[in-house]
Amino acid sequence: MQITGQQVVLASRPDGAPKAENFRLEKVTVRPPGEGEILLASRYLSLDPYMRGRMDDRKSYASPTPVDGVMEGEVIAEVIYSNHPDFTVGMHVLSRSGWSSHCVSNGDGLIPLDDRFKPITTALGVLGMPGLTAYTGLMNIGKPAPGETVVVAAASGPVGSLVGQIAKKAGARVVGIAGGKEKCQYVGETLGFDEVVDHRSPDFVSELAKACPNGIDVYLELVGGEVWNAVFPLLNPYARIPVCGLIAQYNANDSQKGTDRLPVLMREILSRSILFRGFIVREYWDQRPEFLDEVAPWVASGDVRFQEDIVFGLKNAPEAFMGLLEGKNFGKLIVQFD
Amino acid sequence: MQITGQQVVLASRPDGAPKAENFRLEKVTVRPPGEGEILLASRYLSLDPYMRGRMDDRKSYASPTPVDGVMEGEVIAEVIYSNHPDFTVGMHVLSRSGWSSHCVSNGDGLIPLDDRFKPITTALGVLGMPGLTAYTGLMNIGKPAPGETVVVAAASGPVGSLVGQIAKKAGARVVGIAGGKEKCQYVGETLGFDEVVDHRSPDFVSELAKACPNGIDVYLELVGGEVWNAVFPLLNPYARIPVCGLIAQYNANDSQKGTDRLPVLMREILSRSILFRGFIVREYWDQRPEFLDEVAPWVASGDVRFQEDIVFGLKNAPEAFMGLLEGKNFGKLIVQFD
Repeated sequence: MQITGQQVVLASRPDGAPKAENFRLEKVTVRPPGEGEILLASRYLSLDPYMRGRMDDRKSYASPTPVDGVMEGEVIAEVIYSNHPDFTVGMHVLSRSGWSSHCVSNGDGLIPLDDRFKPITTALGVLGMPGLTAYTGLMNIGKPAPGETVVVAAASGPVGSLVGQIAKKAGARVVGIAGGKEKCQYVGETLGFDEVVDHRSPDFVSELAKACPNGIDVYLELVGGEVWNAVFPLLNPYARIPVCGLIAQYNANDSQKGTDRLPVLMREILSRSILFRGFIVREYWDQRPEFLDEVAPWVASGDVRFQEDIVFGLKNAPEAFMGLLEGKNFGKLIVQFD
Repeated sequence: MQITGQQVVLASRPDGAPKAENFRLEKVTVRPPGEGEILLASRYLSLDPYMRGRMDDRKSYASPTPVDGVMEGEVIAEVIYSNHPDFTVGMHVLSRSGWSSHCVSNGDGLIPLDDRFKPITTALGVLGMPGLTAYTGLMNIGKPAPGETVVVAAASGPVGSLVGQIAKKAGARVVGIAGGKEKCQYVGETLGFDEVVDHRSPDFVSELAKACPNGIDVYLELVGGEVWNAVFPLLNPYARIPVCGLIAQYNANDSQKGTDRLPVLMREILSRSILFRGFIVREYWDQRPEFLDEVAPWVASGDVRFQEDIVFGLKNAPEAFMGLLEGKNFGKLIVQFD
């Protein structure tokens, strides 16, 4: 058995926004699986904002990807050869095997996908890591009460869209923020948010204030940047801010000159009794069964809607990823392997 | 009955650190208590950092003191005349009657003080608002686990000293930060903190790091400023930061030029899953009985130590208060009325 696969490696570390030259598509020879091993063929790759952090040489909650190392990521893969009793050919699994067409695995860490995932790509989006992020961040930290105002940025994306839909079910008034007419229309009409504000509007700040006449009680922070500046003055006493993403600042350098916003932030945390809590979804991994039990039926019934943006071909992953950081995707961004 | 009292009013709003000219000592004629009213003579006035905020014309969790209005504050007062069935002459009460020698009251909001408060000034300090702040901030937000590292700034002050002593009882390793040799010695030897670091030391940053070899799990924020800059890099994943004071920035103006520290803060909140939670002690007012049940016996037995800095004469209150904002007091600052 001789298989030639392909993979995308980190060619060099980006300075600011990633460029095509920071990625390299390589051909690789896949070794045959040994005893107790299986061979996986990747079908779908999830592209997510957190990957930007791994490209920097900076310790974070996870180690950086080494230069010349395969770009990290979660894939849906199919077992195409098995020397392992627990995995049969044709099975689909979630695997953290990265931007790579194949993977030899001993089975550790693989998550078999059952027929609750329809279509199977939902395992990367609304029923996957982004969905679990939305659900656990809202339930454990945001805790919206009926009648409260929940604001969701990146509202057409996989995390924001689910946060808003679950918050609606909890009886909250939900205001979405998205970029551009098409996304805003989707958020308002298809997802049924109470209000939508376009962050590209020149009057974004005042439009957000107008959409939140009773202030903001929960803001799930996914983006940072200018959206945060507009949200901050509207926060009510006892507002809760689950922080799980900062896409607007991932490409920025650390030392930003200008006004130091920290003293005012701290003062307002104090005087408005605000809660901030960062979280990484793995903290709540043990809530995945309950999440799937609750949300999968909503997805199956069409009660919860989702949007996927599927790009064909691994060679197009770098460009798609660069677009993700600029909000060019519409819905959960997924690469289908060729 | 004709009584002449005195009071301190806000003469003008300070620009930066308050100056003597921002205060004015006035003689006032006290009106006789009417039906259902009592006359209070103030015995002790609590001076607290939050008062600085009331001097500014800025909406916060409480309204600003108007110019020419009496400076706000909590006092221990004695009933010297009573037309009210619930209050007898000689009773001591807590009253929010401000920097004023007398007060006519209908009894609303007064808190009678029983014999658990020994000396009675403890009702303004270790068993008063600062003590309740320490207790509730630590128990509801900080939640130290045995073996964790708790760092306390303003460690010789009424909040910090109690936070540290309660955290020790909870099995935590407690590191205090104080300014100057005398305070540091008190924190280490009398209060029994595990380590003490002097924030006036030129090597403060490295000394704090050395005192926290396992990082910081809980930091009760009372001061902000340079102490925060030293604490921030040492925070462990899942660190908890109850925010109840920012004394180092109360005199500063809002728009501080220089590096914007907000993006790095947000990034670290995210990547280290940090919790920030501002709180005002009134949020936990219903925990006062349990606080007194637990802490008053410790104070009575000498198991919990406290320090009071008592200044004589209302006319000296402004200077004492200005010193408080610079850390010149040693222990809970109280003005004894003449």
